[in-house]
Amino acid sequence: MKDRDSRMNGLGRFFGVGVGPGDPELLTLKALRVLQESPVICMPKKGEHSRSYALSIVSSYLDPARQELLELVFPMKRDLDLLPTYWRAATDEIIVRLRAGRDVAFITEGDPLLFGTFIYVYDLLRQAEPSVAIEIVPGVSSVNASAASALLPLATTSDRLAIVPASYALEELSDILQRFDTVVLLKVNDVFDRVLDILESLSLTDRAVYVRRCTSPQEEIVRDVRTLRGQKLDYLSQVIVRK
Amino acid sequence: MKDRDSRMNGLGRFFGVGVGPGDPELLTLKALRVLQESPVICMPKKGEHSRSYALSIVSSYLDPARQELLELVFPMKRDLDLLPTYWRAATDEIIVRLRAGRDVAFITEGDPLLFGTFIYVYDLLRQAEPSVAIEIVPGVSSVNASAASALLPLATTSDRLAIVPASYALEELSDILQRFDTVVLLKVNDVFDRVLDILESLSLTDRAVYVRRCTSPQEEIVRDVRTLRGQKLDYLSQVIVRK
Repeated sequence: MKDRDSRMNGLGRFFGVGVGPGDPELLTLKALRVLQESPVICMPKKGEHSRSYALSIVSSYLDPARQELLELVFPMKRDLDLLPTYWRAATDEIIVRLRAGRDVAFITEGDPLLFGTFIYVYDLLRQAEPSVAIEIVPGVSSVNASAASALLPLATTSDRLAIVPASYALEELSDILQRFDTVVLLKVNDVFDRVLDILESLSLTDRAVYVRRCTSPQEEIVRDVRTLRGQKLDYLSQVIVRK
Repeated sequence: MKDRDSRMNGLGRFFGVGVGPGDPELLTLKALRVLQESPVICMPKKGEHSRSYALSIVSSYLDPARQELLELVFPMKRDLDLLPTYWRAATDEIIVRLRAGRDVAFITEGDPLLFGTFIYVYDLLRQAEPSVAIEIVPGVSSVNASAASALLPLATTSDRLAIVPASYALEELSDILQRFDTVVLLKVNDVFDRVLDILESLSLTDRAVYVRRCTSPQEEIVRDVRTLRGQKLDYLSQVIVRK
């Protein structure tokens, strides 16, 4: 149906494709097929001279001679006023290609709908071009993959799981940690020492495991999280607290 | 390393493999490889005469002439006293094969560590046979896949996401719904009408979407969840509440 709609309105299709947490073998069969069939692959990167993490995961599956690799800059600044300008510019680049009848696959590490840049582009695209056919290919999120690397259950039968960006939730963190059986903290790198203070105040430090760039060659698992105090941490870090 | 350890101790390796939410194309490349390389594939099913959902997802990738398909019964009863007996029996079946030097892949729908039966077997196995090499292959969870099917973001930048089994969290549900930006309710089928009452009391009914067996041929998405009141629902149902 989507294929037919797309041909009828002359627009290319837009895919949001989760490419998994880091290991290229954790792509789904569907993600691989969509990527190999799409003439345009676009991806977020943090700055003009940085490299897209999502691209590094899938680069061996792509053919730059046949496919356009469109890198879109999305600064990771907290300057929220400026960000929409970048999202709009990126969306415009995508729309030009969709209007030319070309399918576009937007790749994100992990899953597209869980803290992905994709979500902003998706919202703007639907506003600007409501008739475009959109399909989202879910991916293995870094939350599930970190738990697998650390051999740590996320939830059984009656457990409650919270997934929170630590840098935006410091004030409520103590409360959340007390109420949930498992808490996964993303965006911990800038606030790690404060997170550690909160964990210590609740005697939960021994229940926390730090995971960096799970399933990638740079993966690191630290079970004594106290040793990380004062260190500069990777922005692709998370902490799983399992009671 | 794991391979060598395994050969040194003579035991087969044990894999927990997430096979994704329902669409066989949402298997990862790694899950497919591990499944095709494992001489024993084991899977949970609810009763002697029922069929394993995980098996239905991967059956086209397996070769029963070459591979043993070991179905293990895990009743879905709330009789918590009885369940460990089944887990232990299942673990014993697995250990017999590992001691014979055969690799065993335990498959679960979605992700093995997010509400999977795998977790109980994994715990018992580590106690009974601490030297066995264990690897977990994370999968696309039904949480991410339901959001993709419903085209509904799970979380952006500063959002908090809670994943809770509704049937075990009715008393705290109102509080959780007020504190989190997105709440995914699993195990809703038996308590759906009570969940609906809570959503209505918070004026959140219009923010809820029901998803059944996401990405499978039986997928169903219901955006007016009021229409489901009083109905018998599939046990593989979830509700996403996105504020």
